[in-house]
Order: sequence, then structure tokens, then C-alpha cells
Amino acid sequence: MNALSLQAKFIRIRSNKLFEIFVISVIIFSALLVGAKTYEMSPTMYHLTQFLDWFISAFFLTEITIRFLAEERKKDFFKNFWNVFDTLIVVVSLIPAEDADLAVIARLVRVFRVLRMISIIPELRILLVSLVKALPQLGYVMLLMFIIFYIYAAIGSTLFESINPDLWGDIAISLLTLFRVMTFEDWTDVMYETMEVYPLSWAFYLTFIFFTAFAFLNMVIGIVVNVMEQENELARKQKAKEEAAEHDLEEEPTLSDLLVHIKGLQQQVEQLSAQTTKQEK
Amino acid sequence: MNALSLQAKFIRIRSNKLFEIFVISVIIFSALLVGAKTYEMSPTMYHLTQFLDWFISAFFLTEITIRFLAEERKKDFFKNFWNVFDTLIVVVSLIPAEDADLAVIARLVRVFRVLRMISIIPELRILLVSLVKALPQLGYVMLLMFIIFYIYAAIGSTLFESINPDLWGDIAISLLTLFRVMTFEDWTDVMYETMEVYPLSWAFYLTFIFFTAFAFLNMVIGIVVNVMEQENELARKQKAKEEAAEHDLEEEPTLSDLLVHIKGLQQQVEQLSAQTTKQEK
Amino acid sequence: MNALSLQAKFIRIRSNKLFEIFVISVIIFSALLVGAKTYEMSPTMYHLTQFLDWFISAFFLTEITIRFLAEERKKDFFKNFWNVFDTLIVVVSLIPAEDADLAVIARLVRVFRVLRMISIIPELRILLVSLVKALPQLGYVMLLMFIIFYIYAAIGSTLFESINPDLWGDIAISLLTLFRVMTFEDWTDVMYETMEVYPLSWAFYLTFIFFTAFAFLNMVIGIVVNVMEQENELARKQKAKEEAAEHDLEEEPTLSDLLVHIKGLQQQVEQLSAQTTKQEK
Amino acid sequence: MNALSLQAKFIRIRSNKLFEIFVISVIIFSALLVGAKTYEMSPTMYHLTQFLDWFISAFFLTEITIRFLAEERKKDFFKNFWNVFDTLIVVVSLIPAEDADLAVIARLVRVFRVLRMISIIPELRILLVSLVKALPQLGYVMLLMFIIFYIYAAIGSTLFESINPDLWGDIAISLLTLFRVMTFEDWTDVMYETMEVYPLSWAFYLTFIFFTAFAFLNMVIGIVVNVMEQENELARKQKAKEEAAEHDLEEEPTLSDLLVHIKGLQQQVEQLSAQTTKQEK
Repeated sequence: MNALSLQAKFIRIRSNKLFEIFVISVIIFSALLVGAKTYEMSPTMYHLTQFLDWFISAFFLTEITIRFLAEERKKDFFKNFWNVFDTLIVVVSLIPAEDADLAVIARLVRVFRVLRMISIIPELRILLVSLVKALPQLGYVMLLMFIIFYIYAAIGSTLFESINPDLWGDIAISLLTLFRVMTFEDWTDVMYETMEVYPLSWAFYLTFIFFTAFAFLNMVIGIVVNVMEQENELARKQKAKEEAAEHDLEEEPTLSDLLVHIKGLQQQVEQLSAQTTKQEK
Repeated sequence: MNALSLQAKFIRIRSNKLFEIFVISVIIFSALLVGAKTYEMSPTMYHLTQFLDWFISAFFLTEITIRFLAEERKKDFFKNFWNVFDTLIVVVSLIPAEDADLAVIARLVRVFRVLRMISIIPELRILLVSLVKALPQLGYVMLLMFIIFYIYAAIGSTLFESINPDLWGDIAISLLTLFRVMTFEDWTDVMYETMEVYPLSWAFYLTFIFFTAFAFLNMVIGIVVNVMEQENELARKQKAKEEAAEHDLEEEPTLSDLLVHIKGLQQQVEQLSAQTTKQEK
Repeated sequence: MNALSLQAKFIRIRSNKLFEIFVISVIIFSALLVGAKTYEMSPTMYHLTQFLDWFISAFFLTEITIRFLAEERKKDFFKNFWNVFDTLIVVVSLIPAEDADLAVIARLVRVFRVLRMISIIPELRILLVSLVKALPQLGYVMLLMFIIFYIYAAIGSTLFESINPDLWGDIAISLLTLFRVMTFEDWTDVMYETMEVYPLSWAFYLTFIFFTAFAFLNMVIGIVVNVMEQENELARKQKAKEEAAEHDLEEEPTLSDLLVHIKGLQQQVEQLSAQTTKQEK
Repeated sequence: MNALSLQAKFIRIRSNKLFEIFVISVIIFSALLVGAKTYEMSPTMYHLTQFLDWFISAFFLTEITIRFLAEERKKDFFKNFWNVFDTLIVVVSLIPAEDADLAVIARLVRVFRVLRMISIIPELRILLVSLVKALPQLGYVMLLMFIIFYIYAAIGSTLFESINPDLWGDIAISLLTLFRVMTFEDWTDVMYETMEVYPLSWAFYLTFIFFTAFAFLNMVIGIVVNVMEQENELARKQKAKEEAAEHDLEEEPTLSDLLVHIKGLQQQVEQLSAQTTKQEK
């Protein structure tokens, strides 16, 4: 009985508008605190941020606990991805930041609290989910792109390793160098260097740029077409719905209805004709 | 009576075609003058530009005054955004440019006179309004992008501050550095520097580029889809309008009209049948 | 009579398939010659290219003359843009290349012979015309973009002139520097330099990049929407045409036709009813 | 008889799911091996990779032989592009890698084994085919782009050769330099250098960037429109199919059917009328 009334209380807190605004405020404040800590601070300020940090940790822990206790079936709480996400962030940021060894890690972990902005704002959550859903459709184009990268990296590290091991030392470094070439970042410096040994190596870079640009273009078009199709599908469904609604409203007879009436008429006339014929006799 | 005839005069001036062309000419001339002042000049030329500047200021003031006096209800004048915009630019550019302390500011303010090109050409005004209207639709994607930037900047300034404080000193500088990385501007220089200390920091840059590129792509697609939808909506409305107009013109009977006639026919035949039956007896 | 038969001959030459192929070959060969001349050559080779150059000039002159003489109404020849274009290129490339002063100009002029590729291949001609036709639709976006550039250039050359006159000396140089910033070419070097004097000048660059990117995006979307609309218009027209053709073929009766028949039927039944009534009496 | 049963066995192996998975595993393993060989290795490791290399070669040879023997008509085997592709890669990679002179070539050839990923995964094969099919549609835009490049390269190597022969020495190098300018890679360095001699040469670069950007944009739009049209065509076909299927199902009468019935009715009424008239007499 007591537990039940407590849960009811927690549910009331969870759905309270003020509580929600307060949670968002604390998240934004924790984000600002993360930013503030990157600046040089006086010892007093530093201790203040330490204190605020603990306050935020405690608040988040309380908030998650309220949410958990407010859940009617405890199991369902962890079935929701965003609850797990929030809990993880809150629990992990409990690592003490005072320990010298863990100080940097503790600070980094606190940065991820900013991600709670996404879990708390429904629109951002929807946006992220739709972004993630769009990824698998690009799977094969990305695989093709990776194969192109891999082959060029293997060729590059075979031919150019002796020229500049910093750029072409092994296949991993070569992949990074090729990504750099794809972003056009000082790619001519990379090219001119190898062209001194292999004068025809411009073909290596130009074909690579051509292939990746083409595959990339294909990927973008793939996304655009996908999005368009979804839009068209939605528009079509809505149109069909509207038409159905309109049909129900106006009750416009169909051609079949008309045919039924005309056939009925034909029968009537036939009967009449039969009567007249009988009368005639 | 006198005031009224004066206002009528001002309205006539305001809607005069020649007056409009003259205003546009003066705006273009003031833009050229702003450009000319960036070149080295002889003292004579300098005094000439000073004089022309005062003439333009006086002309703009007169023009705005005419527009204001031509307005029937003085309150409405400041309800129009573009009138307020024009008035502000004209009033602010009255700051004397001779004062040594204010010289630079006065010159800068005069630059904004070029913006009157936008307020005077209706097509540019419409274009700008439609651009501004498109912005809020992008709100959440931009917020998501900012969160990505903020988290990476916080991580960057935590880990890389000691490597290069000029690039990663605090969160503000880190945000700028990340924007630079997003534009691919010498981003490998930034990366190679941190890779010497943290060999795996390439993952930081590559994931950042991937996330921002993906969010950016999403933003662009969002705009394209939006624009397309508006176009389709417009096309649909126009089509519906055309169809309605066509319908009114041809007065094509509906299936309901036909059904009414067929039912009437059935009744007639029924009556006829009844008559024949009666006759039969 | 003789003149007429000559013209007929010229028309026959002009429409001869072999002649056309030969002209294209000479144009391609002249393009290759232009390229070959950029390499170091032995005196013998040089004289050969000189000779080939004169041969091409003579051939093009002959070809244009044939086209001109084949034209039935001489006036119409110069009404065609591509004829004027070809004639200009041919005539101008008659400038003697031997003269030391004019040598460079003569060589440059010969480069433009490559442009005859466009005038001779109809598909390229259509492509170019459609490209040029798409430009005016972008007029206002480009004007807006120029205004943005102009204002930023004026501000830039006012504030940053003393920092680096090579980049911000006057409004023309500033416009070039801003174009460089828009292409992200070492834009941070430009920014870091001014940030040393004005620490807030990053706002200048970031807002500029934002505005131009946004205007550019708008321009691209404008073109895409335009192209799409044209496509849709074409598709709609073709559909309407197909439907009209189908209608003519099947002669499907309209609802009006049916109504006429039903009304006729009603009259018949009415007459029948009248007859029966009369008979009854 | 024996040969036939052997072929049946090979066909069974070829279509075996486990065999397929094993082939894909070996291809992925060979790709990893190619990558591994770019790292420094101990002699033992080196000999291991040598051995694995020979194993993969032998396996691929066996696999291709099985596929060839499983083919019913041997001629058809080489009519399939992907079979030829696979055979070539396998045969060429039989070059001995031990020979010092051929070592690099042999290693490079082995890289192309990674391409077998494309031939073995049907989705990648379809993707590549559709990419290649999209190319010819871009033919004329690419020709136009090449003409623009060629003219600018000819002008560049004529005017700027004396300024920097490394960038503008001949037409081939100039084409490469222009490609660099198109990717915005340190293009201002190239420009500032020539502007010292020809102060107006900025016009050369800006017009070039404008033309190529415009042609490139046109190319992208061309692809997008193409893809869209194909999508629309597909959607239209499917819609027509659905409508036809629906029509067959519902058997909704057409207006013509109704007209037939109405005309029949008119005839009946006419006969009735004739009867009545006869009766009257």
C-alpha cells in the first residue's frame, strides 16, 4: 500500500511539467559546466565546479531513480533504449574525478552528459533514430567504397612505402592518407612527392578521386531517392485516405449502381412488353 | 487642408517612377563610393568623397522623410519591417565621419547602406524572407549538430590542450578548430600533431567528420524535401483550381445526375405498367 | 545559271557526310596541334607545325566560305549565332603568328579553334544553350550573393587593410580574398592573422561562410527545382497527349452522351404513356 | 558417362551453400593477407604469408576450374563478364612472387584479388553495373568539361609557362594543375604566382572555377533527374499494373457497357411503343 502510493507519487513527479523543465535546465547547466572546466580557473572556482559536479551527479542519480521507481514493470524500464542510455551515462559519471589517474577519464565521461540533451528532447531522439535507420540502406555502397579504399591503400603502401613511410608505411596509414586525398586536403603535396619517383602516379590519385567521388555521389543520390520515395509514399497514402473520406461523404453512386438500376429498368420494360403482348391477344 | 495637399504631393513623389529610379541610382552610387573609399586617394579626391557622402546622407534622410510623411497613418510606417530597417540605416549613418575616434565606425556604418539594395528591390526582399523562413525548419538538425560540436570540443580541449593550446586551449577555440576540420582546411596538420601523442586520435577526427557530414547531408536533404513539398503543394492547388474551373465550364453531368434520371424513368415505367395492368382488367 | 549550279554544288558538299567527318577530324587535329605546341620542339618540328597551322587556317576559311556560298539568302547566314561564332574564330585566327609582338596573341587565338568542337557537335550546342538559358533564373540569388560579398569586402578592407594589405588592400583584392575564403582555401591562415589584432574577427569569417553557403545552397536548390519542374511539365504534356490519343481511339462515351440517351428514353416512355392513356379512354 | 557424373558433382559443389561461404571467407582472408603484407614482418611470418599465398592461389584455381567444369556449355562460361574477370585475376596472380624483378608486380596483382569481393557478392555486382550504365548518359557533359579544361590548359601553358614550368610546362601538366585548381587545393598559391606577372590573371582562375563548377553541377543534376525519372517510370508501371489487377478483380462496368444497356432499353421501349400503336388501331 505504502509502496504503491510512493510509486504514484513518483509517476506524478515524472510527468510534472516543472520537473521536466528543471531536468533540462540541469542538463544544460552540466553542459555549460563541462565547457567552463576547459578554461583556466582559480582554486576557489575549481572547488565550486567540483561541488556543482557532485550536485549534478546526485541530481541525475535521483532523477533516474525516480524514473525507475515510477516504472510499473521494472523490466520494461531497461527495454527502452533511452533509459539504458541515460542510466549508463549517469552511472559511469559517478567515477571519482579526484583520483589523479582517473581524472582525465572522469572529465571525459562527464562530457557525455551533454548527450542527455538528445534523450530528453523527443524531436532530437526521432531525428537520431531516423538517421540511424537510413544507414543500413547505404550498406552496399559503403562496402564498395571500402573495397576501393582498400585496393588503393594496398597498391599505395606497396609502391610508395619507400618514398614516404609516414604516409604509406602500412595499409592503415595508407587508408588514412587516402581519406585525406578524398577530402582534397593538400593532396597535391602527396601526389607531387610520388610523381618524382613514378611520373605516372597522377593516374593513381585521379582514378581514386574519380571512383570515390562517383561512389559518394551515388550514395547521396541513394539517400535523396530514398527520402523522396518515403515522402511520395506518405503523400499517396494521405491522398487515398482523403479520397476515401470524400467518397464516404458524398456517396457518389458508382457505375455499378447505375447498371443495377438500368438492368432493373430493362426487366420492368420486358414485363410491360409481355403484358402488352398478352393484352394484344 | 494645406497639410493634406502636402501629403498628397508626397504620395505622388513616392509613387513616381523617376523618383524610384533616382533612389536606386543613389543607392548604387553610395555602394560604389563605399568601394572607392577603400583605395588610396589624393586629398582633393578625399574631400570630394566627404562631400558626396554628406549629399547621400542628406538625400536618404529626405527620401525617408518623404516616405514617412506620405504614410497616411504614421504608426503603420514603423510596423513595416523594411521601413524600420531603412530608417535605422539612414539615421545611424548620420554619425559624423570626421571625428578621429569614430572614423572607422562611421565608415563601417556607411557600408550597410548597400543593404538598402535589398529593401528597395522587391525580388531580393522576397528571396531574403523565404531564406529566413526556411531556417526554423532546420532548428533541430542544427541543435543536433551543435551538440556534436560541443561534445567533440569538450573532449578535444580536455585531451589535446597540452599539445597545442592555440588550437585546443578552451572550448571556444576548440569549436573554431573543429569548424576548421569540418571545412577540411589543413585538418591533417591538426590531426598529425595530436597523433604524435595519441596515435589513435585519428578516430576522433574521422568520427567527427563522419557525424557532421552526415548531419549536414541530412540538413540539405531536409531543405530539398521541404522545397519540393511546397512546390508539389502549389502544383496540386493549381491543378485543383484548373479542374474546378473546367468543371464549371463544361457542366459535365455527374453520376448522381444520371441516377436521378434513371430512377425517374423507372417510376414512369412503373406507372405505365400499372396503367397497362388496369387497362387489362 | 552558272552561279546557281555552283550553289547547288556547295549545298551538296555541305550536307555530304564525308565532308562533315573530315571537318570534325580537322578540328580535332587542330586541337591536338594546339596541345603539341605547348611542348619543346626541334626547329624542323616547329616549321611543320607552322605549316600545318596554315593548312588548318586555309581549310577552315574554305569551309566557312562553302557554308556561306551554300546559304540561299546570304543575310540569314549571319543571323545564326553559330555561323557568326565560327566565322569570328576563323577570321581572327588568320593573324600572322610569325610577328614577334603578336606571337603570343596569335597562339592564344588558335586555342579558341577548339571551341569549334561545340559548334560542330549539335548535342554540345544544345547542352550549352540550355546551360546559358538556366543562368538568368539565378539572377537575383547571384545579385544577393554579390551584395553579401560587397559588404563583407568593404568591411574587410576597412578593418584589416593595415594588417595585411596584400589580402585586404582595396575592395577588389578583398573580394578575391573572400572568394578564397568561400572555397575554404587556407581560410584559417587569413583568419588567424586578423584574430591577432581583432580577437573577435572569427565572427566575420564564420558569418560570411554561413551566408554564402546558405545563398549557394539556395541557388543549387533553385536550379534543381527548376529542372524538376521542366521535367514534370514535359511529363504532364506527354501524359495529356497520350490520354487524348487514347480517347480518340476508344471513343469512350462521356456521361453527357449517356444523359442524352436517357433523356431520349424518358421522352419515349412519356409518349408511350400518353398513347396508353389515350387508348384507355 | 563418367564425365557426365563428374559434371553433375561439380554443379552440386558450385551451388552448395557451404562452398560459397568458404569461397567468400578465402577471398576476405586473401584481402587481409594483402593488408598484412604491408607491415614489417619477421622471416618466419614472411614464409607463412608466402605459404598462405600459394594456398590461396591454388584454392582459387581449383574453384575456377570447378566453376568451368560445372558449366554445361564451355563457350558460355567466357560469355559471362564476371567469369572472365575472375579467371583473369586468378591466372594473373599465378605469377611467381619470389622472382626479385617481378616481386612488386606480383604483389600488386595479388591486390586485385580483393576485387573478387565484387564478383562474388551479387548486390555489389548490380551496384557496379548500374554505376557503369549511368556513365554514358553523362558523355556529352564530360566532353564539354574536357573541352573547357583543354582550352584553359592551352591558354595556361602558353601564358604561364615562363612563370612556373613545374605547373604550366606543357598541356598535360597544365591539365593536372587545373584539376588541382578545380579541387580548390592551394589554388590561390597558383594564382598569386601568376598575378605577379599578369595582375589580371585572377579572371583566368575565376572563370575556370565558374565554368567547371557550373558544368559539374549540371552533371550532378543530370544524374539526379535521370535517377528520378527511372524511379517515376517504375512507379508509373507498378501503378498501371495495380490498376489493371484491380480492374480485373472488381469488373467495374465502363460507360460503354452502360450505353449498350441504355440503347437496348431504347429499342425495347420502341418495340413496346410499336406494339401499343398496332394495338390501338
